[in-house]
Amino acid sequence: MIKVGIAGASGYTGLELIRLSVNHPEIELSVLTSETYKGKPISDVFPSLNGIVDIELQSLNSEILKACDVVFLALPHTAGMDILPQLLGSGCKVIDLSADYRLNDAEAYPEWYSLTHTHPELLSQAVYGLPELHRQKIKTAQVIANPGCYPTSVILALAPLMNTDWVDLNSIISDSKSGVSGAGRKPSLATQYTEVNEGLSPYGLAGHRHTPEMEQELSSLAGKPIKISFSPHLIPMSRGMLSTVYINLKKKFCDDDLIQHYQKFYRDEYFVRVLGKDKFANSHSVAGSNFCDIGIKIDERVNRLVLTSSLDNLIKGASGQAIQNMNIMLGFEEKTGLQSPALFP
Amino acid sequence: MIKVGIAGASGYTGLELIRLSVNHPEIELSVLTSETYKGKPISDVFPSLNGIVDIELQSLNSEILKACDVVFLALPHTAGMDILPQLLGSGCKVIDLSADYRLNDAEAYPEWYSLTHTHPELLSQAVYGLPELHRQKIKTAQVIANPGCYPTSVILALAPLMNTDWVDLNSIISDSKSGVSGAGRKPSLATQYTEVNEGLSPYGLAGHRHTPEMEQELSSLAGKPIKISFSPHLIPMSRGMLSTVYINLKKKFCDDDLIQHYQKFYRDEYFVRVLGKDKFANSHSVAGSNFCDIGIKIDERVNRLVLTSSLDNLIKGASGQAIQNMNIMLGFEEKTGLQSPALFP
Amino acid sequence: MIKVGIAGASGYTGLELIRLSVNHPEIELSVLTSETYKGKPISDVFPSLNGIVDIELQSLNSEILKACDVVFLALPHTAGMDILPQLLGSGCKVIDLSADYRLNDAEAYPEWYSLTHTHPELLSQAVYGLPELHRQKIKTAQVIANPGCYPTSVILALAPLMNTDWVDLNSIISDSKSGVSGAGRKPSLATQYTEVNEGLSPYGLAGHRHTPEMEQELSSLAGKPIKISFSPHLIPMSRGMLSTVYINLKKKFCDDDLIQHYQKFYRDEYFVRVLGKDKFANSHSVAGSNFCDIGIKIDERVNRLVLTSSLDNLIKGASGQAIQNMNIMLGFEEKTGLQSPALFP
Amino acid sequence: MIKVGIAGASGYTGLELIRLSVNHPEIELSVLTSETYKGKPISDVFPSLNGIVDIELQSLNSEILKACDVVFLALPHTAGMDILPQLLGSGCKVIDLSADYRLNDAEAYPEWYSLTHTHPELLSQAVYGLPELHRQKIKTAQVIANPGCYPTSVILALAPLMNTDWVDLNSIISDSKSGVSGAGRKPSLATQYTEVNEGLSPYGLAGHRHTPEMEQELSSLAGKPIKISFSPHLIPMSRGMLSTVYINLKKKFCDDDLIQHYQKFYRDEYFVRVLGKDKFANSHSVAGSNFCDIGIKIDERVNRLVLTSSLDNLIKGASGQAIQNMNIMLGFEEKTGLQSPALFP
Repeated sequence: MIKVGIAGASGYTGLELIRLSVNHPEIELSVLTSETYKGKPISDVFPSLNGIVDIELQSLNSEILKACDVVFLALPHTAGMDILPQLLGSGCKVIDLSADYRLNDAEAYPEWYSLTHTHPELLSQAVYGLPELHRQKIKTAQVIANPGCYPTSVILALAPLMNTDWVDLNSIISDSKSGVSGAGRKPSLATQYTEVNEGLSPYGLAGHRHTPEMEQELSSLAGKPIKISFSPHLIPMSRGMLSTVYINLKKKFCDDDLIQHYQKFYRDEYFVRVLGKDKFANSHSVAGSNFCDIGIKIDERVNRLVLTSSLDNLIKGASGQAIQNMNIMLGFEEKTGLQSPALFP
Repeated sequence: MIKVGIAGASGYTGLELIRLSVNHPEIELSVLTSETYKGKPISDVFPSLNGIVDIELQSLNSEILKACDVVFLALPHTAGMDILPQLLGSGCKVIDLSADYRLNDAEAYPEWYSLTHTHPELLSQAVYGLPELHRQKIKTAQVIANPGCYPTSVILALAPLMNTDWVDLNSIISDSKSGVSGAGRKPSLATQYTEVNEGLSPYGLAGHRHTPEMEQELSSLAGKPIKISFSPHLIPMSRGMLSTVYINLKKKFCDDDLIQHYQKFYRDEYFVRVLGKDKFANSHSVAGSNFCDIGIKIDERVNRLVLTSSLDNLIKGASGQAIQNMNIMLGFEEKTGLQSPALFP
Repeated sequence: MIKVGIAGASGYTGLELIRLSVNHPEIELSVLTSETYKGKPISDVFPSLNGIVDIELQSLNSEILKACDVVFLALPHTAGMDILPQLLGSGCKVIDLSADYRLNDAEAYPEWYSLTHTHPELLSQAVYGLPELHRQKIKTAQVIANPGCYPTSVILALAPLMNTDWVDLNSIISDSKSGVSGAGRKPSLATQYTEVNEGLSPYGLAGHRHTPEMEQELSSLAGKPIKISFSPHLIPMSRGMLSTVYINLKKKFCDDDLIQHYQKFYRDEYFVRVLGKDKFANSHSVAGSNFCDIGIKIDERVNRLVLTSSLDNLIKGASGQAIQNMNIMLGFEEKTGLQSPALFP
Repeated sequence: MIKVGIAGASGYTGLELIRLSVNHPEIELSVLTSETYKGKPISDVFPSLNGIVDIELQSLNSEILKACDVVFLALPHTAGMDILPQLLGSGCKVIDLSADYRLNDAEAYPEWYSLTHTHPELLSQAVYGLPELHRQKIKTAQVIANPGCYPTSVILALAPLMNTDWVDLNSIISDSKSGVSGAGRKPSLATQYTEVNEGLSPYGLAGHRHTPEMEQELSSLAGKPIKISFSPHLIPMSRGMLSTVYINLKKKFCDDDLIQHYQKFYRDEYFVRVLGKDKFANSHSVAGSNFCDIGIKIDERVNRLVLTSSLDNLIKGASGQAIQNMNIMLGFEEKTGLQSPALFP
């Protein structure tokens, strides 16, 4: 059995990693860390785990993590930036769910995250863990920068178009909507029940930190620099994410042309489902699963493509994708532990 | 006291008209109709009205409505199309909350509503009841076509830009999100609690019926034909609506330039609130009130304007705007009965 | 115009007092205090008030409050305990929404609130502000201890039975359910959106602080000491409260007997609505209003009465009742500013 | 592989049986029926199943079901009453999720369900499928009457006390709260989003159909007839159920006494988790899993026991328990396919 460590086990992505691990036949949980709850069993923090996983939480410490085969860093941004190099030195495979190693360009960190990266030399070593684009590199990687939830939804929606000459690459807009769990478990006024329920809140318009991550991958696919408008919105629901992506078409297509193109592009991708004509992606169909659904619709009156892309922000947008990356790195069947359909209703 | 009749009193816009009427000092409810519940007091249908409004519901009948000074038609689309002309003949003022008389062009009905209009001759007589644009005409109108909720949010967001040369009129996209009450009270699978809760659903992309209504008003303001992309989404909440509207800028502005322009444009409009720099419209600030909030933000990296426009779909998006129109038609202070701030949380 | 001060204006009961004041023709807001947001306009804290109430928040200070005719203390428990006596000395009428002056017995504070009361001599002066029971005393009171939300729902449900010999006074159980706004606006893990949504949580079973308040009033009505079981539950909704109250009957009744008894008991009470046969109280019918609805149903197989009592925890359970008390104290019509029906849906 | 048929696959319990089957290594879905959607793939009805289960739905027909080893009847009450005997004749094992065969006494059907049972002779053959009470009989049963969701939560909470002399058996009250999915997928006004959201609704007080089912099992355990008060409430959430159960104690206990008694009673039951001192059951800890959590708290001031019992109404309250029963009947490890912890948040 593969020994797994999770740093930051008492957050939501930590819990989701644990839940998925319980359903995974090839791994065993070995170390769980939490600063807030150290010394307590994880099942005190999350009573859903009672009798299933009762491991005691430890303080974060690279020494104890080094004994693991794989370590997931499910920490707030920057909290694991200096831990990661220590783990690499010991031969652990590391999957970092934060943004710390996602951007190739160290200069982007001061601009978008207001910080100086402490290990810029490792940025080129970290593989951006979107299996549908980078599977070959993931296979042999030692460190994975696990993608953000918004970027996963947007990049998968646009990838099949990026190296065609069918679209106006200056016209990309992603209007994205997310459930609240993406904000993590730390209490704040903005995510209090009463502040979210029955409300619709745009935030971070024209400046959200996930923008450079999307632009990095889209530019790489297109072979030239791409800038997009990205508008996140907070929605009164716990899980699920939907990106409605707009891009102008440069010639006439019918829906079926593009649907076939997408189906062909993703034909070997189990976790990406291209929907049929006049179907739109819906978060219900994916919440609780590792799927990303993509709907394709041309607004013919204005010759603009409207893509809908949905996923579970904690699974395909975080912990499920992390497990998928682990499966690839360790040579397991990629779907292992990830086959459950969405939980609905 | 002005005698008021409401046709379709047992729907949500009907109930909201009643609730607002209770708070209005100049009017009295005289006739309430409902086919489903005729013979019952309205307070049997909506126990919230117990002891406040217990009027018996009657079957819809133009004769009984004619005795009213003002009649609100809060009926499903087409149900009142032939009632309205009968009421006009008797001298009633009529405010129609349906789409039946909103479009000037009779030819648009077969295209967007799959029906032939039975009274095309009246379309020019009906005034589109958006007071911020058509107040003078509303004052003397006998029949008001009360705007749809989505159009109100989108038109108010864009109106100040339409006759400038600052924007690319071919680039307009409105990504709109609505609570469920906009779908009315008739049971359907799509609006069952379990089908909506914890879900995010786009619908009617590239073909929603509110599109021509928006285009009609925007084209009129711009003085030339305008086509937009309109993408509605169903959100798990009961009330409230947000439109995030995108339009490309043709020259460089800073946020404050446009904010000042909007504030000047709406300086005499009590119910339109232009937000300050880096503030985005949020449905919480308007739900339960007749306000429309508009936020202004330039995405400078791509020189695109991102507008946020929020309102309560049942108030400024329906019944509150109808009362506002009535106030104007009858010479009351426009705010009468509409001054309550939003209910939060 | 009566000058009103609100200490603690940036909390939810503070906001609700402001909203209700806007709709009240006889009062004007004069002083609003907030420690967290002092120096900012209240509309920065609650954008719903933009353009309606933009008063600047001040630090809490008894001197500035003394210039008001009426002061509402909408503070956390104990925060106003020592302010209140200072205000009384200046002749202000004070309505305290906290529990600080609700219990007649100073000894109950160490037991239930883990504190020693600093002004036990004032407890007998403070009138428990439940108008349906204590209207005469409220008229001439200078200080009102405004009831808790749970106690209001439970006491009103049971009051008509307390001095009959129809019921077993040892059998009272209130299983109560509340929306989240009752917990206030201070961020905490337990009231984060993701921790509440899609969840049902009992809390404080067999020990909640509202118990002695209910027992005090019920005992007073019965003329002997009464103990009850009180079980609060947190429900995923923002507003509204329902208490399902159980009490064993000592003889046979039919539903109509008791309904008539209740209707007679509350015949002069506008804000208490006794429902008809086979109707149960529902939070929807009262949320957004100052009503308390009471449903009456006998479980004949076991001869137990099941009462349902619903109210809006922020209105009849807090700020609305406070305004009702103010109206009585100042000789206004009791319903002034409180006539709006519930907001539904 | 065991061939499984599901009659009524397009309802919520049908979908949940499919979802759980996907995670079960020993069975294969063979026949799915639906009258509403016959001829369509199940993944058209539930897009969450796209690419995972695309079986075509057939009209309900006992002939095609007979080829299955196990048939789940996930039909509305009475719809399968006459199908079941036909399947038994062919040797199928049948697990009926409806109430049709739950009551031993045929006379109870006219009283509680307003119908005459068409096969009273089979009532004694059907085993009430609560494994914690009837595992031995389930092992050899051919037909299982799968318990209702409310009864499962209440019976498991009370079972350890029924044959003690510690409690007053005339004092039992269950105040139960349920998410909306328990009402099924058929559209109705009462379960529309806007009618449920932000609302708390008692229903069926003193007369709900699940009462005789609870009384049957509790009486059997106690060895004498027991009557209870049962009060269901509809809560604005999709999944989850909580019963707060009250029973008077006849002698003094401390919490730990009863907790130990419960832990001993359920020591071999994986799916029943007895919580520790001062912990209350919460729907979050069980939703998405097959667990039932039970919290134990004595209200010492009145010597009354307050039990909290939570489960997922669609899993331990329906489809999960049905799979658990199937596992027992077929000799599989009882937990097979049911080991996933709750999905939270």
